[in-house]
Amino acid sequence: MSMGTPATGSPAATTDETARLIAAEKVNGTSVYNRQGEHLGSIEDVMLDKVSGKVAYAVLGFGGFLGIGERYHPLPWSVLAYDTRLGGYVVDLDRARLEGAPTFAANEDVDWNDRKWGQRVNDYYGTTPWWAAAPAA
Amino acid sequence: MSMGTPATGSPAATTDETARLIAAEKVNGTSVYNRQGEHLGSIEDVMLDKVSGKVAYAVLGFGGFLGIGERYHPLPWSVLAYDTRLGGYVVDLDRARLEGAPTFAANEDVDWNDRKWGQRVNDYYGTTPWWAAAPAA
Repeated sequence: MSMGTPATGSPAATTDETARLIAAEKVNGTSVYNRQGEHLGSIEDVMLDKVSGKVAYAVLGFGGFLGIGERYHPLPWSVLAYDTRLGGYVVDLDRARLEGAPTFAANEDVDWNDRKWGQRVNDYYGTTPWWAAAPAA
Repeated sequence: MSMGTPATGSPAATTDETARLIAAEKVNGTSVYNRQGEHLGSIEDVMLDKVSGKVAYAVLGFGGFLGIGERYHPLPWSVLAYDTRLGGYVVDLDRARLEGAPTFAANEDVDWNDRKWGQRVNDYYGTTPWWAAAPAA
């Protein structure tokens, strides 16, 4: 990339986060809290549907200690509520609920296109799979 | 981040691109072509609406020569059509049309939250601004 802001690689890095819009590169690392304000982990990556332009999953890194034993939890976007006060996402999920969720390890291959697996993830959270949602306007 | 794949920083980097889903970190750098198959530039970053989880803009780096004089063109997502054969996005815009579009320079501050500016961008492409689109399902 040919950027004036090599520190992050994002265009206009000084203003790439606003009240509503955020550069995809900056979503990674955003904190996730539960309803009690406990810090659960942070967003490790975001999976986009190329066709609709919608976020299919935010991948939460959760569990383990100092990064050891941490697992990736694909969360359907609608599970996350952005809290501008906290500057992070809030999920209505306790630790036990998260611990029982479909996850994968850092060294594990995930077939994101496997709709059986996607259905299992969405069934767990009671959400509509990304491919079944209404197309973007 | 505590990843097993430090090369890209994405979870399960070997499989982070599928037929439909792509890691946000991998959208950056995706090529953009016009209808004649001409390579126009590539996506430099993606601006997400934190609330709806939808892509508000893909930022196209276009123009200039060897990165000098290149400008950033915020493109409403609906302007882009993903072409799996090309492995990139196709836009129905010729160079002259792109050259006249609202842009910003690498060293320029952009107020992404300025809806007058956002309206101007969307008016230019005849699209619905991200804040006026239906909420994500």
